[in-house]
Amino acid sequence: MKLGDGVEQAIHSVAMLSGLSADGVLSAAALAEFHGVSTSYLLKHLQALSGAGILQTVPGPRGGYRLARGADEITLLDVVLAVEGREPAFRCKEIRQRGPNPLPQRYMTRPCQINAAMLRAERAYRAELAKTTIAAVLGELAEQDMDGAVVARGCAFLEQHERKSS
Amino acid sequence: MKLGDGVEQAIHSVAMLSGLSADGVLSAAALAEFHGVSTSYLLKHLQALSGAGILQTVPGPRGGYRLARGADEITLLDVVLAVEGREPAFRCKEIRQRGPNPLPQRYMTRPCQINAAMLRAERAYRAELAKTTIAAVLGELAEQDMDGAVVARGCAFLEQHERKSS
Ligand code: FES
Ligand code: FES
Repeated sequence: MKLGDGVEQAIHSVAMLSGLSADGVLSAAALAEFHGVSTSYLLKHLQALSGAGILQTVPGPRGGYRLARGADEITLLDVVLAVEGREPAFRCKEIRQRGPNPLPQRYMTRPCQINAAMLRAERAYRAELAKTTIAAVLGELAEQDMDGAVVARGCAFLEQHERKSS
Repeated sequence: MKLGDGVEQAIHSVAMLSGLSADGVLSAAALAEFHGVSTSYLLKHLQALSGAGILQTVPGPRGGYRLARGADEITLLDVVLAVEGREPAFRCKEIRQRGPNPLPQRYMTRPCQINAAMLRAERAYRAELAKTTIAAVLGELAEQDMDGAVVARGCAFLEQHERKSS
């Protein structure tokens, strides 16, 4: 089981965008540069976040991305599902129905117990991710940022790269 | 995020093997036939289960596989980790250390808050899988097996294919 690298990039990008001023946007290229990743790869994930209603895309030469809602209303689950898709990790292929001796059809009204147990675990995973907002992650970061170096790093970059879209 | 098809096959195989008599084994070919999957593919997963101490391999022409311990001592987590590996689904690439302006080195003694949150969710997932034993899954199955058709299906197959290893 493996999540793609896009999840890390997407969560860090959303966290970064939460530092923009009200009318500011960041370009995909700036986000990619800050995180040292390829723009074309990141763009795919930014578009997925846009499609899921987490980011707003401002078109045009001064355009870019910004959050579509507050960082306290975006959970890690929102981002993970936007980037990875909504299907559960375990995908039952109904192997109980295969082979020379498949399970009688009348059992098919209920999911296989194994599938049901795997989906319980998926729900626990998602519930945990749904508990954590981007705002909470940034709060934890700030708590540990004794000398302000982390915030300063983000601010300096935003100052240089933020575009005023209005 | 996606688990391989091997997980479903492995859990179903372990459940099947729990029906063997004390000195019985099943060949990989029989398990593959029952589940309608490729023997060579299943073999890979059976070997992983063996390597993880979940199955015992009995060598020789009358050999095959059996459980290395009771079905009440094998959890879904044991099987998932054996087949999929022990690495968490989220693999932090430390992108906070990349780019033209990486986070100062003194922050590296703590994991990134995003990584920590993702690992909390992984722990919740694993805790849930660790709660469910193969015996419990079979218990649920038996409860719903009003007319005994499911058990009869497994027994008929075992009767035909079980090898006595001693
Ligand atoms: S048939 Fe898919 S998990 Fe049992
Ligand atoms: S650096 Fe990897 S999750 Fe933050």
